[in-house]
Amino acid sequence: MADVQSIRAFGKARSTVEGKPLSDEEIKQYNDYFKASCYLSLGMIYLRENPLLREPLKREHLKARLLGHFGSAPGQIFTYMHFNRLIKKYDLDAYFVSGPGHGAPAVLSQSYLEGVYSEVYPDKSQDIEGLQRFFKYFSFPGGVGSHATPETPGSIHEGGELGYSLSHAFGSVYDYPNLIAVTMVGDGEAETGPLATAWHSNKFLNPITDGAVLPVLHLNGYKINNPTILARVSHEELKNLFHGYGYTPYFVEGDDVDTMHQAMAATLEHCVNEIRRYQKEARESGIATRPLWPMIVLRTPKGWTAPRKVDGNYLGGFWRAHQVPITDPSTNPEHLKILEDWMRSYEPDRLFDESGKPIASLTALTPQGNRRMSANPVANGGVLRKPLNMPDFKKYGVKVEHSGAVIDASMKRLGVFLRDVVAANPHNFRLFGPDETESNKLSAVYEVGKKVWMGEYFEEDENGGNLAPAGRVMEMLSEHTCEGWLEGYILSGRHGLLNSYEPFIHVIDSMVNQHCKWLEKCLEVEWRVRVASLNILLTSVVWRQDHNGFTHQDPGFLDVVANKSPEVVRIYLPPDGNCLLSVMDHCLRSSNYVNVVVSDKQDHLQYLDMDAAVQHCTKGIGIWPKFSTDIGQDPDLVMASCGDISTHETLAAIDLLLQHFPELKIRYVNCVDLFKLIHPSEHPHGLSDNEWISLFTADTPIIFNFHSYPWMVHRLTYKRPGSQNIHVRGYKEKGNIDTPLELAIRNQTDRFSLAIDAIDRMPNLHNRGAAARQAMLNAQIEARNEAFERGMDPEYLTKWTWKRDGLWNKHA
Amino acid sequence: MADVQSIRAFGKARSTVEGKPLSDEEIKQYNDYFKASCYLSLGMIYLRENPLLREPLKREHLKARLLGHFGSAPGQIFTYMHFNRLIKKYDLDAYFVSGPGHGAPAVLSQSYLEGVYSEVYPDKSQDIEGLQRFFKYFSFPGGVGSHATPETPGSIHEGGELGYSLSHAFGSVYDYPNLIAVTMVGDGEAETGPLATAWHSNKFLNPITDGAVLPVLHLNGYKINNPTILARVSHEELKNLFHGYGYTPYFVEGDDVDTMHQAMAATLEHCVNEIRRYQKEARESGIATRPLWPMIVLRTPKGWTAPRKVDGNYLGGFWRAHQVPITDPSTNPEHLKILEDWMRSYEPDRLFDESGKPIASLTALTPQGNRRMSANPVANGGVLRKPLNMPDFKKYGVKVEHSGAVIDASMKRLGVFLRDVVAANPHNFRLFGPDETESNKLSAVYEVGKKVWMGEYFEEDENGGNLAPAGRVMEMLSEHTCEGWLEGYILSGRHGLLNSYEPFIHVIDSMVNQHCKWLEKCLEVEWRVRVASLNILLTSVVWRQDHNGFTHQDPGFLDVVANKSPEVVRIYLPPDGNCLLSVMDHCLRSSNYVNVVVSDKQDHLQYLDMDAAVQHCTKGIGIWPKFSTDIGQDPDLVMASCGDISTHETLAAIDLLLQHFPELKIRYVNCVDLFKLIHPSEHPHGLSDNEWISLFTADTPIIFNFHSYPWMVHRLTYKRPGSQNIHVRGYKEKGNIDTPLELAIRNQTDRFSLAIDAIDRMPNLHNRGAAARQAMLNAQIEARNEAFERGMDPEYLTKWTWKRDGLWNKHA
Repeated sequence: MADVQSIRAFGKARSTVEGKPLSDEEIKQYNDYFKASCYLSLGMIYLRENPLLREPLKREHLKARLLGHFGSAPGQIFTYMHFNRLIKKYDLDAYFVSGPGHGAPAVLSQSYLEGVYSEVYPDKSQDIEGLQRFFKYFSFPGGVGSHATPETPGSIHEGGELGYSLSHAFGSVYDYPNLIAVTMVGDGEAETGPLATAWHSNKFLNPITDGAVLPVLHLNGYKINNPTILARVSHEELKNLFHGYGYTPYFVEGDDVDTMHQAMAATLEHCVNEIRRYQKEARESGIATRPLWPMIVLRTPKGWTAPRKVDGNYLGGFWRAHQVPITDPSTNPEHLKILEDWMRSYEPDRLFDESGKPIASLTALTPQGNRRMSANPVANGGVLRKPLNMPDFKKYGVKVEHSGAVIDASMKRLGVFLRDVVAANPHNFRLFGPDETESNKLSAVYEVGKKVWMGEYFEEDENGGNLAPAGRVMEMLSEHTCEGWLEGYILSGRHGLLNSYEPFIHVIDSMVNQHCKWLEKCLEVEWRVRVASLNILLTSVVWRQDHNGFTHQDPGFLDVVANKSPEVVRIYLPPDGNCLLSVMDHCLRSSNYVNVVVSDKQDHLQYLDMDAAVQHCTKGIGIWPKFSTDIGQDPDLVMASCGDISTHETLAAIDLLLQHFPELKIRYVNCVDLFKLIHPSEHPHGLSDNEWISLFTADTPIIFNFHSYPWMVHRLTYKRPGSQNIHVRGYKEKGNIDTPLELAIRNQTDRFSLAIDAIDRMPNLHNRGAAARQAMLNAQIEARNEAFERGMDPEYLTKWTWKRDGLWNKHA
Repeated sequence: MADVQSIRAFGKARSTVEGKPLSDEEIKQYNDYFKASCYLSLGMIYLRENPLLREPLKREHLKARLLGHFGSAPGQIFTYMHFNRLIKKYDLDAYFVSGPGHGAPAVLSQSYLEGVYSEVYPDKSQDIEGLQRFFKYFSFPGGVGSHATPETPGSIHEGGELGYSLSHAFGSVYDYPNLIAVTMVGDGEAETGPLATAWHSNKFLNPITDGAVLPVLHLNGYKINNPTILARVSHEELKNLFHGYGYTPYFVEGDDVDTMHQAMAATLEHCVNEIRRYQKEARESGIATRPLWPMIVLRTPKGWTAPRKVDGNYLGGFWRAHQVPITDPSTNPEHLKILEDWMRSYEPDRLFDESGKPIASLTALTPQGNRRMSANPVANGGVLRKPLNMPDFKKYGVKVEHSGAVIDASMKRLGVFLRDVVAANPHNFRLFGPDETESNKLSAVYEVGKKVWMGEYFEEDENGGNLAPAGRVMEMLSEHTCEGWLEGYILSGRHGLLNSYEPFIHVIDSMVNQHCKWLEKCLEVEWRVRVASLNILLTSVVWRQDHNGFTHQDPGFLDVVANKSPEVVRIYLPPDGNCLLSVMDHCLRSSNYVNVVVSDKQDHLQYLDMDAAVQHCTKGIGIWPKFSTDIGQDPDLVMASCGDISTHETLAAIDLLLQHFPELKIRYVNCVDLFKLIHPSEHPHGLSDNEWISLFTADTPIIFNFHSYPWMVHRLTYKRPGSQNIHVRGYKEKGNIDTPLELAIRNQTDRFSLAIDAIDRMPNLHNRGAAARQAMLNAQIEARNEAFERGMDPEYLTKWTWKRDGLWNKHA
C-alpha cells in the first residue's frame, strides 16, 4: 500500500489499492476522454458561440451571465468514466448519483459523450450546431439548470439541496440485486446531518436481495468559501470514520493525471470485485451477512486541471474554483486569454472531428444501450414501475350498522390491509418509518414482512423483535434516511409508504419540498414516465399528544405541503376507518403525487359503512345526512369538520346543540380531501363555487373544526361566497401536559366550545341561547375538573357515541 | 485495558480505564444514591399517593394514566451522580444535557435530590407531602412534562424532538472556558442526521477560549420497538467511528452495579483530567490545537435494574423497558406485586427519613449552591445575559437624498455594522451560517472575527481563507449544527445571528419550531429569565434564485414560523438598506423572540433616509408619501408591498401606471413588520381595524405584492374590513432557470403584471385602461424577448429608478 498519509490533494497518485490495470495506450485514451469531458464542462459554463474554439475566443462568444459550478466536475467525471470501463468489462447494471448536484456539467458532459443526451434532446446533437446549443442552454433562461435536474438523463438526484445522495442511492438498490449505484458524495454535502447518518444505510442492505452502493467521497477540499471538515482531518481519523460507519475505505489521492488514471481504475475494479464477491458468497450460501462494503475516498484538487493561480491568487485547488473559476473574461482581456489557453489545453481541435462529433476513440470507451449510465432505466423509474397488486380494501373495513355507534381501531385495520399489500407485492413495496410502525399500530405488517436488520442479533430478538435480514419494513430513527430511501425506491420504479409521528414530520419539510419540486419539473420533461406517489401517513396526531406535551404538538406540515404545486400535492384527512382504507387504496394506486394522509392511531368512533365511505372519499367532501337535521330545508347552521378527532368533537357539539334546540336545522359537512375547499383555479380538486354553495350556502354561519392550524382553512376559502361566515377552529399552539379535553379546550376545538361558537353566531336564539351557553360552560368546567382530578378525561367524553341515528332524520 | 469486545450490556463492568477510585464505603453510598434516584424515577411514573410505600401498594395509589419513560433513566442517573463526585473534588463548573430528554425522571430525580427542585418549586418539598406532589404532577394534567422541559431546573435541552443535544451542548460552552457540558447522547438520538454530524463540532472548539463537552453515548440498546444501530455493530466499528469523529472513546459496559460504580467513577475522572490537561497545555502555551477530546460509551441495559423478564417476556435490557415498563399494574394484581417488589428493592424505607427527606448520606454526595448541575446559571442563561454593546446603527446607513434614485448594497452595509457589533462584543456574540457568510455579502465581519477553524491549515488559507482557531464566525455546512450551536449559545446567556440562504432554512423548520415552543413555555416558568432572541437572517431570496433554479426557490419558512405562538415570533421584511439596519438593531436588542429578517443580498434601490427608515420600522407599516399621489384625497387604488424586491416592482408598477394615468390617486403602503397585517387579537403587533382602514381604506382595490407565498397575506387579513378588495401576488411555485424578470412574470409579480392587475380592478378607466393594458403587455413581451436573447434582463429593468420625486407630490 502506498503512502496515503498526506492530506494534500496534489502530486502523484497515492492509493490503497495498487495494480496497473491500464496500458499506456489506455491511459492516453482515458486522458483524452477526461480532457473532452472537462472541455465540455467549461464550455457549458462559458460559451454561447464558437463552441469548439475554431475562432479565437472573443467576449461576444461568452454568455452574458456566467453560471454553473466547475469545482467538483473533474473528479466526478473521472469517477464516472473509469466506472464505464468496468461496466463494459463485467457487463454491470449501474447508474450514477451525483451528490454535489451543482456540478451538473460533470454528468451532462458524460451523457453527451454517451450519446444519450442527443437521443433524448435531438437538437443537442453530436455536431457543432448541437454542441453550441448544448453549451448555450446550460443554466440559461429557458434552458436546463446547473444541477442534475429532472431534465438530466440518468439522474434521480438533483442535488440542489445537499445531503440526500446516499439515502437516495440506497433506496434505489433495495430489491434490485444486480444494480450498483455509483454515488459521488461531496465533502460539503458530507457535513450535512442527513448525509452523515445515511452512511448507516448499510445496516439495512441485504447482499442477497439487494444491489450495492459504491460511495465515492469526493474530497475536493472546499465548499463555497470554506475548507471542508473531512478534507482537514488526519488520514487516521478519516480511515477510522469510514471503518466506523461499516465500510472498507479505499483511498485515491493526487492530481497527477496519468498515475491517477491507473490508481482510480485499479481501485474501482477492486471495489467492484469486492461487491461481486460479497454478493456471490451470500447468494450461494443463502446466508446474508453484513460485509464491510467498499467505499472510496477520492482526494483531488477543487477544479482539478484549472490554473493553480490567477493574478497571484490561488484558483485550482482552492475555493475560488468552486463555481465559475474565472469570473470576468468579458471585461478582462488577460483573463479571457487565460481562459482560452486553459480551454485549448483540453485539445478540442483534436478530440472533436470536423463535424464537431467526439472522435471515435472517445465514444469507443462508453458502454452501449441501457448499459450507459445516463440511459439506465432505473433513473427513469416510471419505465420499470408496475402497478401494485392490490387486495380489495373493502374487505378490511369495519361493519358500521349504526353510524357513530361503534368504536374501532382505524389504524389497526389499515395495518392488516398493508400486511396484505406487502404480501402481494413481495419485491415491489416497502413500508418505511422511524421506529414507530408498532407504536402507530401497524404491526400486522410484521406477519409477512419483518423489519430489515443487518446488525447483530441477540437472544431477546426472538421475543418480539420482528427483525430479519430480509424484510419489508425499514425502520431507522432518522426521518431523513427513511424519506430518502423511499424517494430512491420510488424514483427507481417501486412503491412505498412512510409512516411517522405527525409532529416530527417537520424534520423532513425540506426533503418533501424538494421531492415536490422534482415531481413538478418531471411533468415538463416528456421522456420522464410517471412514478409511484410518495405516500406519507401521519399519525400520533396533535390532539392525542396531550401527554407528550407541547413539543409533540405540531400539525403544520400541511401548510408546508400546501405551498407546493397543486399538480403534485394531495392532502387527505379521513374521518374514520373505512375512509382511511379507501383513501389509502387510492393513494397507493396513484402516481406522481405527494399524498399526505392524516389519521390518528387511537380507537375512534366509526361513521360510514364501506360503501358510504367509498362514495364519500370519491367526492372528497359532502353532507352527512345522518348527522344533519336540515334535509329539504335551508339550514340555520352549518357545522363542518376535517380530521378524525375534529369530526368526533363536531358531532358531539351537534349532539349538544340538539339537546338544547331540537328544532335547529343543522347541516353537517365532512371534508376528507382538503383541496376541495379551494377554488378550482388554484387546485384541480377544488369545488366550483356552485358546488361550494350547495354544501355551505352563501349566507349561513359555518363552524368549521379543523385538524390543523385554523388559518389554513381561511387561506383556502378566502374567495368563497360567504367566506365571512366561516368560523374556523383548530390548533392554535396552545398546549402542555393536558388531557385531550383540556388540550381541545385550550384551542377551543372541544364540543362545548364549538357548540358555544354556534350559539354565539345565532343571535335569534335570544335568551334560550344564553341559557344553553351557560349550561355548556358549566358542563365544560365540570368535565375539566373531573379530568384534572383523575388525571384522565371522563369516559362520557372519550367513549361518547352518537345515539340519534334516525331520530330526527327518517330519510337518512 | 479490560475486555470490551463483547457488545452485550450485561455482566461485570468492562472498561477502557482501569483504576478503583472508590472505597467500599463510597461504593455503598453511591449505590444508595443510585437506588434512591431510580426509586424517584419509578415513583414519578407510577404513584399519585403512598409515595414512600409506607402502606402496601394498591391500585388506588397509582396514576390512572401511566406515562413517562424509564428506559434511559438509570444510565443517565449513573452518569450524573458520578460526575457530581468530580464537581466536588475539582470544584468544576458543569451542567448536564439530557439528549434522550424523554427520560426526564433521570434529571428530575437529580434536581430533587440536590434540593434545587424544592427551592424552585417550594410545594415539591423534600418531605413526604412534597414528594407526593413531585410524583403526582410528573406527566400529569397541569403538571410537568415527561421530557427535560423548560420547567426542569438545569435544562437547556428538552429532548422532545431528538437530535440536538450535542449541538446545544457545544453552543453553550463556546466562550465559557471553564464550563463542562456533560452530555448524554441517546443511542436512538444518535441515529438522527443532526446528531450524527454534530460530533464534528469538535472541529470548532478552541481549548483556550472555550469550555468542553464530555459526550456520553448511552448505548442502552433500544428505541421504542427496535434495537439501535450503534448497539449492534462490532466494538471495532464503534471505536473507529468515534476516533473517526475526532474523539478518544472510553468504554464502560456492564450491569453489575458495584463494579460499574468503580468503572464509571474512574472513567469520568480520567476524562475530566484529560480535558483539564488539554486546556492547561493550550492555555499555558497559547497554542490552540485540536486534541482527540475524550468521550464515553456507556453500555448498560435498557431499564437497568428493572426485572429482566415478566411473564416470560424480556423487560429489562429489552425495548419493553423503554417507556412504562409494567403497563397494567392497575388491572393485573400479579404485576402490581412485581412492581411493588421492584420499587421496594430500592429501599425507600431506608433512604428517606421519617419526614420523607433523603437521608444525610445521600445529600452529602451532592455539590453545593450553583455547583449543583441543576442550579448552574448557564442553564438559565438569562441570568448571565448582558445586553450587547451596540454601535449606533445609524452611522452605517446609506445617504438617500432622493428616494428611489440610488442603488446600494444593503447587505454589505449590514456586514459592516455586524463587524462592529462583533468587535464591540468579543466574547458575547457570534455569527453563524452554513458556508454562506461571504456569499451573503457579510464578509466585512472577517476583519474583526475570522471563521473558527480547528482543522488542519494549508498554505492557501493565507490567501482568502479567513480562518483562525479563535474567531467569531461559525461556518459548517449543516444548518442543523449552526442552529443548534446558536440555540446553545443563546440559552446559556449570549447573543448571535444565523444567516442562511432562504430556500434551505426549511432544513431546520423543525428545530426552529421546537425553539419557539421552548421560548413559549419559558414565559410560563417564573424563574426563567429572558434570553437573547434567536435571530435568523434569510437572504439569497427566491426572486434572485432564478439562476439556481426551482430547488432554490422557497420562501415558505415564514409560513412555518407564523404558525408558532404570537408571543415569540416576529417577521420583518425591510424594503431597503436603512430599514435593514434599523430592523437588525432592534432584533439584536430584543429578547425571547425568534426574529426572522428577510433581505436580498444584491444591490437594491434605496428609498428612505435613516430618520425616515427608523420611523418607518418603528411603525412597522406605513404610507410612503413620496410614492403616493393621493395626499389629502381618497385613493383610487392602493398599491402595497412587503419585501425588498416586491417593493421595487410595485414602485415600478406605480411608475408605469402614472405614465399612462397621471391623474390617478395612488396610495403606496409598505409593510416591514409582517404581523402588522393581522388583527391585534391574534398578534400583539397587529394594527387595529381603524389603523388598518386609515392605511388601506375599506373600499379601495388593493394590489399587494408579497415576497413569499401570496396566501399568507390572505390568512393574515381575512378578517379585515375590505379584505375582499385585497389582491395579492407572490411566489406561486412557478420557476426554473429564468431571468429575474421571467421568474417574476411566471408568478405575476413583475411591474407589468402588477400594473395590469391594477387596471383590471379599475373598470372606470374604460378604453384608456384597455389601451394601457395592451401597452404594458407589449412592453412585457419586449423585455422578455430581450432577456431571453441576451440571457440577462435589460438594464432598464434591473437599474430602474424612481424619477418622480416631488413631481406630483409637493407636500411629501
